[in-house]
Amino acid sequence: MALTPARTPPGVLELLPLDQIAFQGMLDTIRGNFERFGFLPVETPVMELTDILLTKEGGETERQVYFVQSTGSMEKGGTPEIALRFDLTVPLARYVAEHEHQLNFPFRRYQMQRVYRGERAQRGRFREFYQCDIDVIGKDSLSIRYDAELPAVIYNVFRDLKIGPFTIQLNNRKLMRGFFENLGVVDGEKQTLVLREVDKLDKRGADYVRETLTGEGFGLDASVADRILDFVGTRSTGHDDALAKLAALGHGSETFNQGVAELRDVLELIRAFGVPESYYAVNFSIARGLDYYTGTVYETHLVEHPQIGSICSGGRYENLAGHYTKSHLPGVGISIGATRLFWQLREAGLIGTGASTVEVLVTQMDEAELPRYVAIATELRQAGIATEVVLEPGKLAKQFKYADRAGIRFAVLVGSNEIARDVVVIKDLARQEQFEVTRADLVKTLRVELEQAAAMRT
Amino acid sequence: MALTPARTPPGVLELLPLDQIAFQGMLDTIRGNFERFGFLPVETPVMELTDILLTKEGGETERQVYFVQSTGSMEKGGTPEIALRFDLTVPLARYVAEHEHQLNFPFRRYQMQRVYRGERAQRGRFREFYQCDIDVIGKDSLSIRYDAELPAVIYNVFRDLKIGPFTIQLNNRKLMRGFFENLGVVDGEKQTLVLREVDKLDKRGADYVRETLTGEGFGLDASVADRILDFVGTRSTGHDDALAKLAALGHGSETFNQGVAELRDVLELIRAFGVPESYYAVNFSIARGLDYYTGTVYETHLVEHPQIGSICSGGRYENLAGHYTKSHLPGVGISIGATRLFWQLREAGLIGTGASTVEVLVTQMDEAELPRYVAIATELRQAGIATEVVLEPGKLAKQFKYADRAGIRFAVLVGSNEIARDVVVIKDLARQEQFEVTRADLVKTLRVELEQAAAMRT
Repeated sequence: MALTPARTPPGVLELLPLDQIAFQGMLDTIRGNFERFGFLPVETPVMELTDILLTKEGGETERQVYFVQSTGSMEKGGTPEIALRFDLTVPLARYVAEHEHQLNFPFRRYQMQRVYRGERAQRGRFREFYQCDIDVIGKDSLSIRYDAELPAVIYNVFRDLKIGPFTIQLNNRKLMRGFFENLGVVDGEKQTLVLREVDKLDKRGADYVRETLTGEGFGLDASVADRILDFVGTRSTGHDDALAKLAALGHGSETFNQGVAELRDVLELIRAFGVPESYYAVNFSIARGLDYYTGTVYETHLVEHPQIGSICSGGRYENLAGHYTKSHLPGVGISIGATRLFWQLREAGLIGTGASTVEVLVTQMDEAELPRYVAIATELRQAGIATEVVLEPGKLAKQFKYADRAGIRFAVLVGSNEIARDVVVIKDLARQEQFEVTRADLVKTLRVELEQAAAMRT
Repeated sequence: MALTPARTPPGVLELLPLDQIAFQGMLDTIRGNFERFGFLPVETPVMELTDILLTKEGGETERQVYFVQSTGSMEKGGTPEIALRFDLTVPLARYVAEHEHQLNFPFRRYQMQRVYRGERAQRGRFREFYQCDIDVIGKDSLSIRYDAELPAVIYNVFRDLKIGPFTIQLNNRKLMRGFFENLGVVDGEKQTLVLREVDKLDKRGADYVRETLTGEGFGLDASVADRILDFVGTRSTGHDDALAKLAALGHGSETFNQGVAELRDVLELIRAFGVPESYYAVNFSIARGLDYYTGTVYETHLVEHPQIGSICSGGRYENLAGHYTKSHLPGVGISIGATRLFWQLREAGLIGTGASTVEVLVTQMDEAELPRYVAIATELRQAGIATEVVLEPGKLAKQFKYADRAGIRFAVLVGSNEIARDVVVIKDLARQEQFEVTRADLVKTLRVELEQAAAMRT
């Protein structure tokens, strides 16, 4: 039979088991913090109806959508009825609109699932990737205070991931729009276009943005462009400095004043949530590409790895599900692109492979004693210790090699000599040491060893 | 703007948060046992290349495949290059063939992901559903002992799920083929056809199967058909009875003797793995529809809910990845269809909604004291207690109603009176009781309360 070469489609991240364990550990840390902050789990189907998924604003996104068809529906032709989700926000909007009367508001949900985008194949670009989202959705209204709670979640997640210092950068869309208003840029559309240019500052630099803003299409005065560039260059260096920089902006249009007040409230409450001041800052250049943010916006950057870009972003939006319900549902949310983050952290050498989830290998010194080895494994498992028992007969050296390659830290050895004396040998493969304990002390001893090994890793 | 009605595609199971928590709990129990038995996690992309997914044997499965296309590739026409996996076995075969030289054998992997089948829309039939699989893959060979380890995993999983008594039913394909050989049915194809008919016994009854076997196409003697029906009617009622029923079969063809010996070895070792004898039995009618099983086969049935059918099935196969590699990779595996199982258990009233993952609600008695409430929430979260703090001002009665509807058990209340005396009030919403503790004792007290509440549930 001719063989089909085994390979995945391009644009996916498939991991070997020890890497998968490391990735799983990252997801568990994220999930644990989401739950500790009182967010509830939601999972939605990977497929949504096409009319739900594709709204008029589609554009770029729509061209990246993967449509799904069974053989039967392909034969019929026409636009496919279902497609794969490209983010978790549209499914959330549909979910909240569909189950509105069975949910409690403010509705706090977390969702950690894969999404799909037909991106151009490119290193570090994924067509399938995990997003880890939390959102708080209000009915009719939602206090600005929730905008301060999410940075506290971000702080807790990335502190626990132990990937170095990071800064949660805060801005407010009203503040930005108001600032443009103060400068005479009052048309909403034009403000959006200016926001989009400002968003390119990091990638293209100030000269490019100044040229665009004063050039054809925009036609802003050079002095206005300079004031905008000066404004968006603002970064704070601590809590008091952030408040001072806000105060220095003075007063202006109603939108402007509201933006300043919101950002001040958020800053004050972030501190109350226990986030150390070195972990957050205002950055008036943060605009976020998406048009639906209307107030607070966030990005999160690793201080020592700025090239990675934002590792957690989000913001406040005015109305979640206007396409599906007449209810007014304002919300605030953040998203972590876990697949890309994991890939980048690995590229940057910030994470290695995980320790195996298998903690102990019960070796097979004497095939005739197999029931004894199986009984030991059963006892360890009942004590909550992840245990593999060698069932295939073979040389002990080969069994150790297997444990070593598989990343299993401890091996248990029992031969006729040990049986006669009612003891077992525990071999620590990392330290290449072994010692004897009584059979009765096996579980207790291994628990201590495993706790120590875990403590050494963190 | 015209509204699009919010709805999911047919054939998916989308859950409200408290149901999602219950489902998540089921997955966690399964995952915990898979890991305790030393299986390693693998996740594969939801999409596989079409030539990987669809091999010649396709047939029924192929007609159920969902193809995936981006807008660009739809415009090009032709057979779509990628499709959604319909099980986790084909992806496992591709994974092992692709990463063969980086894996350790025997390779023990677990995988818990969703799969997709374009089933006819029907109550209780899902087009998207979770499968939870474990497999042990050997290189060149794999000891029969692993066939005994998997029932031990099944026993541990379903014992921990607490859904009532169950029986792991065991059979062996070699035993069945050998028995047919002994009766003169020596052609392999014909044996497969007989196996398929026998597999219908539960659904169609003995008369239907006897008629088919003696009718056109098969043309077996009535006495042969009767001996087959008698054989497949065999069920054991305990460990010794299972061995006795095996012994009573006597000797026959080489395949037959091998099947008897394998099943006997498996039975002996299952006992050594600590599975109580009331949880396993031989059942010579278990054939499993899939053609690739070659030795041991399993089904698992709830004793008190036979209508649910098998809740965990699997078996031994001769070669996992013959389409993708020349390496000979025998294996044994089981699969739990978690979505269907959850749905059926809920229909049968065997599981309710989960307790909320949110353990405590810190109420807002006095808006001016918000930083204090936030600080209490932060302290509880740092202690590992999942806590929501009310940020929206509102009446206390409304806050309690929210906690009650959301399934949050404990509320923390702090007003000016409590602040003056440095105490807090803990309200147990389930018992409708409240009591006071000193501020310093809050974490300690809540931990005890939560432990008691958890103990009451299990």
